[in-house]
Amino acid sequence: MESTVIYDSMPRTKKAIFIEGLPGVGDIGKTAADFIVKSLKAKKFATILSEHLPPQVILDDDCVIRMASNELWYAEVNGRDIVFLTGDFQAMTPDGQFLFCKNLFDNDLKKLDISEIYTLGGYGTGKLVDNPRILGAVSDIGMKGRLEECGVVFSPGEPGPGIVGASGLFVGFGQMAGIPSACLMGETSGFFVDYKSAIELINVLEKLMGFEIDKKELLEGAEHIDELNARVKEYGEEQERNSLTYIG
Amino acid sequence: MESTVIYDSMPRTKKAIFIEGLPGVGDIGKTAADFIVKSLKAKKFATILSEHLPPQVILDDDCVIRMASNELWYAEVNGRDIVFLTGDFQAMTPDGQFLFCKNLFDNDLKKLDISEIYTLGGYGTGKLVDNPRILGAVSDIGMKGRLEECGVVFSPGEPGPGIVGASGLFVGFGQMAGIPSACLMGETSGFFVDYKSAIELINVLEKLMGFEIDKKELLEGAEHIDELNARVKEYGEEQERNSLTYIG
Amino acid sequence: MESTVIYDSMPRTKKAIFIEGLPGVGDIGKTAADFIVKSLKAKKFATILSEHLPPQVILDDDCVIRMASNELWYAEVNGRDIVFLTGDFQAMTPDGQFLFCKNLFDNDLKKLDISEIYTLGGYGTGKLVDNPRILGAVSDIGMKGRLEECGVVFSPGEPGPGIVGASGLFVGFGQMAGIPSACLMGETSGFFVDYKSAIELINVLEKLMGFEIDKKELLEGAEHIDELNARVKEYGEEQERNSLTYIG
Amino acid sequence: MESTVIYDSMPRTKKAIFIEGLPGVGDIGKTAADFIVKSLKAKKFATILSEHLPPQVILDDDCVIRMASNELWYAEVNGRDIVFLTGDFQAMTPDGQFLFCKNLFDNDLKKLDISEIYTLGGYGTGKLVDNPRILGAVSDIGMKGRLEECGVVFSPGEPGPGIVGASGLFVGFGQMAGIPSACLMGETSGFFVDYKSAIELINVLEKLMGFEIDKKELLEGAEHIDELNARVKEYGEEQERNSLTYIG
Repeated sequence: MESTVIYDSMPRTKKAIFIEGLPGVGDIGKTAADFIVKSLKAKKFATILSEHLPPQVILDDDCVIRMASNELWYAEVNGRDIVFLTGDFQAMTPDGQFLFCKNLFDNDLKKLDISEIYTLGGYGTGKLVDNPRILGAVSDIGMKGRLEECGVVFSPGEPGPGIVGASGLFVGFGQMAGIPSACLMGETSGFFVDYKSAIELINVLEKLMGFEIDKKELLEGAEHIDELNARVKEYGEEQERNSLTYIG
Repeated sequence: MESTVIYDSMPRTKKAIFIEGLPGVGDIGKTAADFIVKSLKAKKFATILSEHLPPQVILDDDCVIRMASNELWYAEVNGRDIVFLTGDFQAMTPDGQFLFCKNLFDNDLKKLDISEIYTLGGYGTGKLVDNPRILGAVSDIGMKGRLEECGVVFSPGEPGPGIVGASGLFVGFGQMAGIPSACLMGETSGFFVDYKSAIELINVLEKLMGFEIDKKELLEGAEHIDELNARVKEYGEEQERNSLTYIG
Repeated sequence: MESTVIYDSMPRTKKAIFIEGLPGVGDIGKTAADFIVKSLKAKKFATILSEHLPPQVILDDDCVIRMASNELWYAEVNGRDIVFLTGDFQAMTPDGQFLFCKNLFDNDLKKLDISEIYTLGGYGTGKLVDNPRILGAVSDIGMKGRLEECGVVFSPGEPGPGIVGASGLFVGFGQMAGIPSACLMGETSGFFVDYKSAIELINVLEKLMGFEIDKKELLEGAEHIDELNARVKEYGEEQERNSLTYIG
Repeated sequence: MESTVIYDSMPRTKKAIFIEGLPGVGDIGKTAADFIVKSLKAKKFATILSEHLPPQVILDDDCVIRMASNELWYAEVNGRDIVFLTGDFQAMTPDGQFLFCKNLFDNDLKKLDISEIYTLGGYGTGKLVDNPRILGAVSDIGMKGRLEECGVVFSPGEPGPGIVGASGLFVGFGQMAGIPSACLMGETSGFFVDYKSAIELINVLEKLMGFEIDKKELLEGAEHIDELNARVKEYGEEQERNSLTYIG
């Protein structure tokens, strides 16, 4: 069975930008995309059900359910159509991820006349990061200049083994279809939902797309992360001191 | 391959209630549904085979086999048609659960003109429960009043991570099709088949549907559970005393 | 994709008996079926390839390969057509087992006009068995008398959790199609390929089908098993003596 | 979904030789095939995407991505058309391997008029090998003489349990289609990418196909392997000496 995409409405997009922000390392892509969608008052126009997503419903505070799903949203910014893909889950299995994204790309994104693709993700380093960089990977070397101007860093060998899941697949499918496509990855320890890295990612997108977003709410989250980071560091240093004492 | 639904007959139902009671935490949904089916002398009208169910046959005391399957049953109560889904197993895998339920919903439940859905499940707390509540989750906030009158408790944040499997999926599919749908979950430790919680669930359904059922057999099971609970508690308290002694 | 059944020829069977003997506990079904096929000089008429079988080839002593497959064989005994299913492997996954057997049953066995089904398996007890019984399970209670005359034992609760895999599925599909179907299971420790139990199973089939087979080769295997059993027993008793000594 | 084979062009091959060299034990098949493809200046004419390959993109040193894929290449040698299958990955699951190879064989290789098949693999021995043999397995016993002349060794019982994955499947499918097919396996410890064994494999193919290849680059890799081997051996002997000392 293919995924079922249930349209509430179908926006008549032209040369639209597609932005993917699903869960991943540090949930940076998801945090950034969800926040931009909310800030731009984007309109949800489709719900995607699939056997590749967890077979479950989620409850709100009123005990009203909704299906585990992915969603498509529409916004217009400076005359450009933007389509967002968000959701609580990625497909559960490797082949499910391929099928889910391929199906969406071949059937739905084509109808939406997508002419540019940005996938948002995280790059987990496994250690605390004070000033997270936004790393980039592109379908076409010609895209690098413009992205570097917006603050994206291209660093050979990072991320090492490639980009896995929706963030990799959509730039890959984009490349094969001749659509300029880039993956933007916020550096992160990967230990918690990384608001700080998500803010950096939004900063890049603001410059790239020409919109401006009130990030107050995210900044509060980021302060919380800074505190957590500080504690983790302190703990680490204390451990080090203790072990030095012990050795001495 | 899709599931194979083998019909012995096809009841001409109108605005039927669909009740799902498959195995799950504490087997409360299964226990309640099986018992109601038996008490109402419901008629089995379809057998469902699927590659998503375990590939096996089950033996009765005469060594006569039957396929591992799910079944559909029909009963009429106070002029309302009721269709039950019961079985020894749920689908084995997450994507199998989605496909199994979606297939049944799209093909078979539509033919049966379902206008109301109740899925029966358990809510595992991991600790002994003296007076199990029946928790609810609904597709539509308007359903809550009537269910609360029948004894259902709506408790924000319970169950936390959502409802997984058939009990979640059928209320989700119901919601998307505009059918009022609720999941009723008996609170349970989840340590054994919980007759006591199943009785509470049946009590709710009796009020909701206006039928009455002789629960003598289940009450005997429930007494047995009370005994088990008492022993588990005693053992726990003894352990506690021993550890206090030890510390003292 | 469905399995690919490659026919070398198609026997024009009428009211044929179908005998399944694939690998399983103690490989009793496989050992018995392979030996009968060889003894009756049955003719291989079809090779079954499938994604559900291991993706590999097997080498003979000349380093000539053959695909991992299942095979269909034909023999005539006393005017009755018999079709055998043998192979080196069963399907690798639970859903693969269902799909593999369902596909074969629906497409191929129907063409072969099967009117009786026997599946051959093992019943693993986890302990040494001196005189292995042949346990039975039937699709129809009316089959029991005839099978008991041939030496089959029907023992309530054995095997407990039902019959899994091809041996279960073909009797299940047979029952649903109204074909008298029985599963015959040789009792076995399950520790090694159990020739002794396979011989007992062949003894039952000889009476049932009216053929006679020279079991010399299997008897040699069985003697070897008896030796192994003796050693395992001796070792167990020695361990017991040692532990008694130790306690004393 | 079936694999998607994206053709840049379609060579008009006649009675072509098909050579498969995908990753495996010691990556000998992949190393040999990639090196021959490069040396013969073969032309890539098709890219194969599939849900059975990992759902990811790979980055080059410019941070430009490419899809995880398999590729088909074309070269002409002494008037013979040769088609190569190479790639970074094999399909991830057993059934995925079957489906991936079957699909390619049935749809694409048929169009390419393949009349001879060689699959390249490794035979892992789990211990250091000084002079790796090239072991063979064939679809037809008549192929052995010619292959032995080119240095292939046929050794009964090696490899024991058969040949798994693409290297096994293509010779199996070839056999069933009446195409002479052989699997050539470089002996290897399997501890690292085995250049030395890959060179031996190329030596065999040079004789077999009548081409000649500058193996300088591989020889450098092989020297590195020899060093590694020497160190591993030294370490092993040292360990042995130490343990003897200890016992003494």
